[in-house]
Amino acid sequence: MSFERMWRDLRPVGRDERSGGYFRQPWTSAETELRVWFREEATARGLDLEADGIGNMVAWWDPTGRGRRGGLLTGSHLDSVLDGGAYDGPLGVVSALAALDLMRSRGDSLSTPIGIGVFVEEEGSRFGLACLGSRLATGTMSWAKARELRDRDGIWLSDALSDAGLDPTSGFVDLSSVSCFVELHVEQGRDLVDRGAAVGVASEIWPHGRYRFDFLGEANHAGTTRMEDRRDPMLTYAMTALAANKQARLAGHRATFGRVEVTPNGTNAVPSQVTAWLDARCDTETSLAALVSEIERQGVDRAGRDGTHLRVTAESVSGAVGFDSSLAARIAADHEDGDWPVIPTQAGHDAGILSAAGVPTAMLFVRNPTGISHSPDESADTADCLVGVEALADTLARLAR
Amino acid sequence: MSFERMWRDLRPVGRDERSGGYFRQPWTSAETELRVWFREEATARGLDLEADGIGNMVAWWDPTGRGRRGGLLTGSHLDSVLDGGAYDGPLGVVSALAALDLMRSRGDSLSTPIGIGVFVEEEGSRFGLACLGSRLATGTMSWAKARELRDRDGIWLSDALSDAGLDPTSGFVDLSSVSCFVELHVEQGRDLVDRGAAVGVASEIWPHGRYRFDFLGEANHAGTTRMEDRRDPMLTYAMTALAANKQARLAGHRATFGRVEVTPNGTNAVPSQVTAWLDARCDTETSLAALVSEIERQGVDRAGRDGTHLRVTAESVSGAVGFDSSLAARIAADHEDGDWPVIPTQAGHDAGILSAAGVPTAMLFVRNPTGISHSPDESADTADCLVGVEALADTLARLAR
Repeated sequence: MSFERMWRDLRPVGRDERSGGYFRQPWTSAETELRVWFREEATARGLDLEADGIGNMVAWWDPTGRGRRGGLLTGSHLDSVLDGGAYDGPLGVVSALAALDLMRSRGDSLSTPIGIGVFVEEEGSRFGLACLGSRLATGTMSWAKARELRDRDGIWLSDALSDAGLDPTSGFVDLSSVSCFVELHVEQGRDLVDRGAAVGVASEIWPHGRYRFDFLGEANHAGTTRMEDRRDPMLTYAMTALAANKQARLAGHRATFGRVEVTPNGTNAVPSQVTAWLDARCDTETSLAALVSEIERQGVDRAGRDGTHLRVTAESVSGAVGFDSSLAARIAADHEDGDWPVIPTQAGHDAGILSAAGVPTAMLFVRNPTGISHSPDESADTADCLVGVEALADTLARLAR
Repeated sequence: MSFERMWRDLRPVGRDERSGGYFRQPWTSAETELRVWFREEATARGLDLEADGIGNMVAWWDPTGRGRRGGLLTGSHLDSVLDGGAYDGPLGVVSALAALDLMRSRGDSLSTPIGIGVFVEEEGSRFGLACLGSRLATGTMSWAKARELRDRDGIWLSDALSDAGLDPTSGFVDLSSVSCFVELHVEQGRDLVDRGAAVGVASEIWPHGRYRFDFLGEANHAGTTRMEDRRDPMLTYAMTALAANKQARLAGHRATFGRVEVTPNGTNAVPSQVTAWLDARCDTETSLAALVSEIERQGVDRAGRDGTHLRVTAESVSGAVGFDSSLAARIAADHEDGDWPVIPTQAGHDAGILSAAGVPTAMLFVRNPTGISHSPDESADTADCLVGVEALADTLARLAR
């Protein structure tokens, strides 16, 4: 079966042998290899490949011969977080190609073309802004704004692109005539395990954001400076990280400090600065704003006691995304067994960007037995993945009738 | 005056224009430039330069013509912490050269040769082990042991050395016949400010150590993983950092977490691991052991609640170093005004290594008006530095009579 062959092909690309995790950051050699792989898969199927100036790609299958207008779009992304899992992203791309193979082998008759999309830098693992490719393709973000981005090594986005042979001024894939987007994705929690379902349909994405917390103090000698003479930003950070966890736990929300950079980061120096990034997610935009504001308030309060300063910058905030509810209901109801649950997710996706840009959008989730994601331990059973492929093929075939 | 000329020469070397701090890590271009500078200063004074396989240097002045046996040693180091100050290290080297100029201009008569030493990697800012050069030169550490060291980029010490054109198997400077070592250093606290003295003499170095704390958890998606399902090592670290500060503050000791590395360090991933280094210093070895053990106990306790693990490794522990008390008393008493205080320090120094290796050793401190050190803001008044040069010249001249 094509799914398993493709899955084997992707397994070694960008894999760290020690952790077993993936490093598929955009415009690195691993991610370039994945794009070449996708191009080859599209060519082998006789699809018409549209590629743009940032690395987004759409491979079109047009059995109608009437062109792409009003076409359905499916697909996902191929990039990963640092040391991520195999499924987050690639499962949607491989499943889309396998679903196309299945529809063809079944002889499904389509009155609408289908495109398989690959959006770049979905994780924001390199330039810090999630869904960069789909933001540019939908016009949600302009190139003039995107070109201000730099990665953690200080490399400008435009330099990374030109090193990869890409020219962002040549424009982005045109999604304006897409009638509908369906993204299949591995579930990143345990809702489907709890409900005993192999596949589910998304209702909404929680509002979420990334916030940069700069804790500013005074560098000093770790041995000779009396504790009471210090202005140590590490302490302010530590208390803020604990406060964020507590606030999110109390309210059933999510708050994480997963990235920290210390200056000068020397064992025998009190730091002059600690910068940490808060990832926060809540069920409503009001509660998200309240959560971040409460964490900041507690941080500022502690800074007053530590003789440090705290500066908070919202780097990206995404509002609530309700997926097309009639589309979700139709997909769930269309299923023969009638047992596809409709569930919310706390994870951002390209589907959220397309939905916010006005494209009727749906997501299918495939069960994750441990719920673990963004980790080498992320997994899904092949049997469930194959149910997912069939579910996607069925959904696309019905929508394209 | 030669002091001020030399000080101007050193000012730009390895200086970061934004912070004003210094990056003079061993065997980098900045530190290589400093070694070339020292060689030129030695040559200009007709000194006999002894250089070894790791980059230690001693420039000998032997007005007796009888060879180096029983010679006095002075000097310090030229490397810096990351983003460090101008004075920590270089003040001792420049003052030694200036003191030699002063003794020669005064026509002091010496019956003992004087060597000016520069020890490499005193800060341990690159390979994590402070006083690496003096440890090797005194035989306190063997090359077989040192060669196991790697820097934070994974570069082996032996590769860094061979890249710098050094061959550690050629041996190290021979300190076996040194009769006495006197190191001048900027003070790294405010004792001399409080006592109104430009110069002081060291009594002892507090016991101190570096301990690596590995906090091990489970990577996961920062959005979709419920707070109660996480095993987040960042929380265990944060609590441990606050506990370390509190314990040290209560007991009048020092405990600092100034260096942190997070894996994978992505904004939207719960970390799988946080590694942080504890720098701890106490007035006795017993209280140092008790402090580290109490911090570890609180960390392990919290790890139990977070579902994480904590592993603590002592990377380097230095026992108490009492400097030669009769030498210190003699230096302090020799001073005409009789007002050089004898004070302890919490900072490690090459002088501590030589003293522990059995060399009668003394340290002179020069007043630091803010007490700030290991920071771009580290400073000393030129007037105080010149008092320091004269104090060092007087001390050496008396010891070499």
